[in-house]
Amino acid sequence: MKIKTLVGCLLLSLSAVQCWASPEAEVRALVARWGQAFKIKNVEQVMACYAPGSAVRAFDIVPPLECSGHDAYRKNYEQFFAMYRGPIELELRDLQVIASADLAFITVLERMAGTLTDGQKSEMWVRVTSGLRKMEGRWLIVHDHVSVPVDFASGKALLELKP
Amino acid sequence: MKIKTLVGCLLLSLSAVQCWASPEAEVRALVARWGQAFKIKNVEQVMACYAPGSAVRAFDIVPPLECSGHDAYRKNYEQFFAMYRGPIELELRDLQVIASADLAFITVLERMAGTLTDGQKSEMWVRVTSGLRKMEGRWLIVHDHVSVPVDFASGKALLELKP
Repeated sequence: MKIKTLVGCLLLSLSAVQCWASPEAEVRALVARWGQAFKIKNVEQVMACYAPGSAVRAFDIVPPLECSGHDAYRKNYEQFFAMYRGPIELELRDLQVIASADLAFITVLERMAGTLTDGQKSEMWVRVTSGLRKMEGRWLIVHDHVSVPVDFASGKALLELKP
Repeated sequence: MKIKTLVGCLLLSLSAVQCWASPEAEVRALVARWGQAFKIKNVEQVMACYAPGSAVRAFDIVPPLECSGHDAYRKNYEQFFAMYRGPIELELRDLQVIASADLAFITVLERMAGTLTDGQKSEMWVRVTSGLRKMEGRWLIVHDHVSVPVDFASGKALLELKP
């Protein structure tokens, strides 16, 4: 009976923690889940962080200008992951979360590094903004914007900048 | 007296409209004000749309990776405006506003066109994401992300894409 009581107390405490988690803490937890999935290139787990259907609007680092909907954006992830041999290193720098009860956006610098399929090492820092909504009790990403700046003199994308 | 009553009613109605304006309508009004100021290159009016001090974090189309604070971002606008002879054409395509009572983000495609100081015509479509907060009753932009996609094969920034 003592063990049952203890387990009961633990479950109660856990659900209280769940209830008391701030929107910011919940959003940070989602970003952490996304990061874990990204590193091991698990498309299912990555896409579980995004809203279903047509709610996703992404401004990705690759063309076209915009990518609409869960399925289209999933293809971008699949193509990106396919460029790498093995896992991808991911470092998040200066993650800023601005959240209300059911709406949030995040801004962050991300270092992505790894070995490409041709054996070459790749490393780049990108800027990421995401917009999130709490839908039926779950935070989901509805918008991503991923980019590097432009050098207008040469027309080059600045893929080697560091923060 | 009848005219006074009529004017009184009108004023009451107007203030009611003001009170009833949805967060989305208020954010759209801010974006419209920003657009008007941008077209005539009025830096004061443009920057009046942004939060003061260090609250602004911008991922601009030009380097570095990020630009922190009102004053630093103002310099980016000044340099951008100085590239153009006369006003800048601005077209907003598919402006999406997602707003709660005091937090919002917008996503939009923007066409910027004009004559550069060397007489050359310039036109480009960029993707813009902004994050906004309602501070002391006023919506202000706290985050901008402006970019074009990258062609990884050539390393070029894709400045000539169209939606």
